[in-house]
Amino acid sequence: MENKVEPGDTLLLIDSKGKKWMVQASLGRTLSTHRGEISLQELIGTPYGASVRTKIGERVWLARPTCEDFIMKSRRPTQIVYPKDMGILLTRSGIGPGSLVVEGGTGSGALATLLAWFVRPNGHVFSYETRRDFIETATRNLGRAGLLDYVTLKEGDITAGVDEEDAQAFFLDIGDPWRAIPAAHRSLIGGAVLSVIMPTYNQVEKTAESMKGMFTDIQTVEILMRNVLVRRGRTRPGSRMIGHTAFLTTGRKTIS
Amino acid sequence: MENKVEPGDTLLLIDSKGKKWMVQASLGRTLSTHRGEISLQELIGTPYGASVRTKIGERVWLARPTCEDFIMKSRRPTQIVYPKDMGILLTRSGIGPGSLVVEGGTGSGALATLLAWFVRPNGHVFSYETRRDFIETATRNLGRAGLLDYVTLKEGDITAGVDEEDAQAFFLDIGDPWRAIPAAHRSLIGGAVLSVIMPTYNQVEKTAESMKGMFTDIQTVEILMRNVLVRRGRTRPGSRMIGHTAFLTTGRKTIS
Amino acid sequence: MENKVEPGDTLLLIDSKGKKWMVQASLGRTLSTHRGEISLQELIGTPYGASVRTKIGERVWLARPTCEDFIMKSRRPTQIVYPKDMGILLTRSGIGPGSLVVEGGTGSGALATLLAWFVRPNGHVFSYETRRDFIETATRNLGRAGLLDYVTLKEGDITAGVDEEDAQAFFLDIGDPWRAIPAAHRSLIGGAVLSVIMPTYNQVEKTAESMKGMFTDIQTVEILMRNVLVRRGRTRPGSRMIGHTAFLTTGRKTIS
Amino acid sequence: MENKVEPGDTLLLIDSKGKKWMVQASLGRTLSTHRGEISLQELIGTPYGASVRTKIGERVWLARPTCEDFIMKSRRPTQIVYPKDMGILLTRSGIGPGSLVVEGGTGSGALATLLAWFVRPNGHVFSYETRRDFIETATRNLGRAGLLDYVTLKEGDITAGVDEEDAQAFFLDIGDPWRAIPAAHRSLIGGAVLSVIMPTYNQVEKTAESMKGMFTDIQTVEILMRNVLVRRGRTRPGSRMIGHTAFLTTGRKTIS
Repeated sequence: MENKVEPGDTLLLIDSKGKKWMVQASLGRTLSTHRGEISLQELIGTPYGASVRTKIGERVWLARPTCEDFIMKSRRPTQIVYPKDMGILLTRSGIGPGSLVVEGGTGSGALATLLAWFVRPNGHVFSYETRRDFIETATRNLGRAGLLDYVTLKEGDITAGVDEEDAQAFFLDIGDPWRAIPAAHRSLIGGAVLSVIMPTYNQVEKTAESMKGMFTDIQTVEILMRNVLVRRGRTRPGSRMIGHTAFLTTGRKTIS
Repeated sequence: MENKVEPGDTLLLIDSKGKKWMVQASLGRTLSTHRGEISLQELIGTPYGASVRTKIGERVWLARPTCEDFIMKSRRPTQIVYPKDMGILLTRSGIGPGSLVVEGGTGSGALATLLAWFVRPNGHVFSYETRRDFIETATRNLGRAGLLDYVTLKEGDITAGVDEEDAQAFFLDIGDPWRAIPAAHRSLIGGAVLSVIMPTYNQVEKTAESMKGMFTDIQTVEILMRNVLVRRGRTRPGSRMIGHTAFLTTGRKTIS
Repeated sequence: MENKVEPGDTLLLIDSKGKKWMVQASLGRTLSTHRGEISLQELIGTPYGASVRTKIGERVWLARPTCEDFIMKSRRPTQIVYPKDMGILLTRSGIGPGSLVVEGGTGSGALATLLAWFVRPNGHVFSYETRRDFIETATRNLGRAGLLDYVTLKEGDITAGVDEEDAQAFFLDIGDPWRAIPAAHRSLIGGAVLSVIMPTYNQVEKTAESMKGMFTDIQTVEILMRNVLVRRGRTRPGSRMIGHTAFLTTGRKTIS
Repeated sequence: MENKVEPGDTLLLIDSKGKKWMVQASLGRTLSTHRGEISLQELIGTPYGASVRTKIGERVWLARPTCEDFIMKSRRPTQIVYPKDMGILLTRSGIGPGSLVVEGGTGSGALATLLAWFVRPNGHVFSYETRRDFIETATRNLGRAGLLDYVTLKEGDITAGVDEEDAQAFFLDIGDPWRAIPAAHRSLIGGAVLSVIMPTYNQVEKTAESMKGMFTDIQTVEILMRNVLVRRGRTRPGSRMIGHTAFLTTGRKTIS
């Protein structure tokens, strides 16, 4: 891998304050920022890690987007799964490269992006969504991240059941996940993990109740992330933080 | 993949209270628990997700270990990286299947387990550790997780520099990480991410200071995880939680 | 005020590790600790802030108990209100010296201790409790804190209504607080604050719902407290913390 | 106490969304809000807890301000002490009605408001501040809360020592609190508590270090408060929260 910007690369520009823009190098276009304009075409050939100057002389650095960058810079008409919550989803769900994974609803495709990123190249994500406009948004977001080959987007209601019969992990990020528990149970292989993402206590209670008898080791957690502002001699936690995104409930499929 | 216990499988036993044991199916031995004895040999052929009975009739369920299970059930003579902290490390570091990763120190191998799990089969982890006894523990833990092929354990001081010159991600979990910043910078490709795991704010301050000029987008976060006790009509957060494990500092390598 | 231990004083002994004992100076008895025995009678006449030696030569310091000390060292057969939660209860409830306050249930008397501490000498706390054994425990705890003159303990069910018709603040710490909302509304003067302490989100939901139409500015919060371990060059948050004690719901009485 | 608005009363107006205005009833003026105008003079004689209508027919309720209201609605040119942090300061410092308290710096007077509220009518707060403009702001804020009789504002540098020699509690909310530790020690009676409010880890470390040998039972905590959005069937924690205000260090004066 030559570590330089190639035509068509989706890349990240980062200014000295940490502000980021995700752009494509091939467009022959210009990015307008409050720190001045940047010619996107001229980025081609620049090594990653190097900086370029905007028209008004401000430096911005070039980096390959991480999984987190793709998600945080995606189009987001819906609430998305946040990076802080992804750790438990990744490590507790048992997925890894090669896993066959089912999820629904697709929403903006943030979770599908995460899952595809980590199951590729031999694994696959089957993602269900009832709303066609969300599927279009997710398609665009996954395409920009170069992950479309690893995701099959299906228009359909996941509570009605899925086609896949040997899912190694199952994810639910819908408003009424308790209605999809039987579908998840049928699709998963024995012992494999269902993960459910829910904003309210009420959903958690209904869902955990519905999982009883079909799943074991049922756990619910929430994750809080706090920034630390590190400055020599004046280091302290950040003043503002996100207080809540979602509760995360997991369980392992049992068979009798 | 036949979803039954094969001879030699490392598997998880889970009782009705969520207590877990990690065992190997081939030993011809007996596991003694407070819920009665279990013949490990007789597990062979049992489908994952099914339950077996202990000698006193208690049910325990069988599951394939997740990445989190392998880490939490590993031998841990050292402090380890906790699952709650892994999300940021995974998503912010930019790693994925196929990545070439360098880390030090190895410690008990928890972070190496996480990294190897997600970069296999085509990626690789090079892990540096000065203490031979830790290398032996990590070798044992990685072996049990079936990940030894994806990790090269090296006896050596990571602050003195590493052999790898094209690391796509670099991780530091040592007491004096600020001394290893130049080594990390030399090893990483441009724009790639250094992640540092540190328990004290003093380490964070020194490390972030040392990263200036060599890295950009330097951020420090801490992650808190809280259990929710879900019981119909009596749902509430858990009374006890872990208050702190580590601060996590990340930055992207710049080149001039 | 002579700042020396008087016969009969209830005082705090603090060892070099921060461990504390609450004792009475007049007993002619001996306190046995893992740091050696202390003659309680010999404490009389020692200035507060000074240290004495145990029989094996360890130093322990003398201090007057704070409100928090009295609560944390009380007999606690029941769950109590924690210091971390008291701030909102004190500042949001509008109480101060001279306030007339009603609360129920008394439990171990922790909240009554807090309230009496801050409304004395001209204010008063009327506290309702159905269980006679709790009233006895609370009487003992309030007595030790010297606060019995400012509290009237009443055996009775607060949900059935209270005698006081001009409460300036009303507190509920019972299992079914939604049943006491009408009683609280009748007792409070217009615009005054009801505070409810509840461990589960289900209770919060029922209670807040019941308050609608009778109270305005209804808010619910939870408070988390984390220790910081301060050691030169190695300062970090504490590893263990209390994850949850109670949700705190407040509202102001409306009249039509 | 007649529970109606009297001429000159400082009172709180609360709309149906919980938005609040603090106003004085005597002004013959009009309050302009996004919910319409309110004649402040016409509030006189209205019972607390009742609602009035704005010119466009929106209801707003009347309530007596609590200690928290006075602080949150004060003029705040400086960072203030937040209600979430006040609990520990109140309960751990040992103060109560009648206490003699010293604090510095005064800043906007938020902490002085809290302290005066709870030590009145027989206690007193002596508050030191070097900046005359802050003293003026604090005077105005304390006056509006009706607490000026219980506070003596002194222009002076608290690190240089204070006049009071029998302080029952001492509070520091200045940038370099470690320089005021000897002054606090001299002023406090034996066994009494010093409380220090600091935003950064570095201040905490220096201050706790300085307290050694002069104070015992030195503890540092931080308090997090999270809102819960309670809605029938859709209850969840609030999305945004304050991530940090201050660390709170306390210790008890020792004498040799």
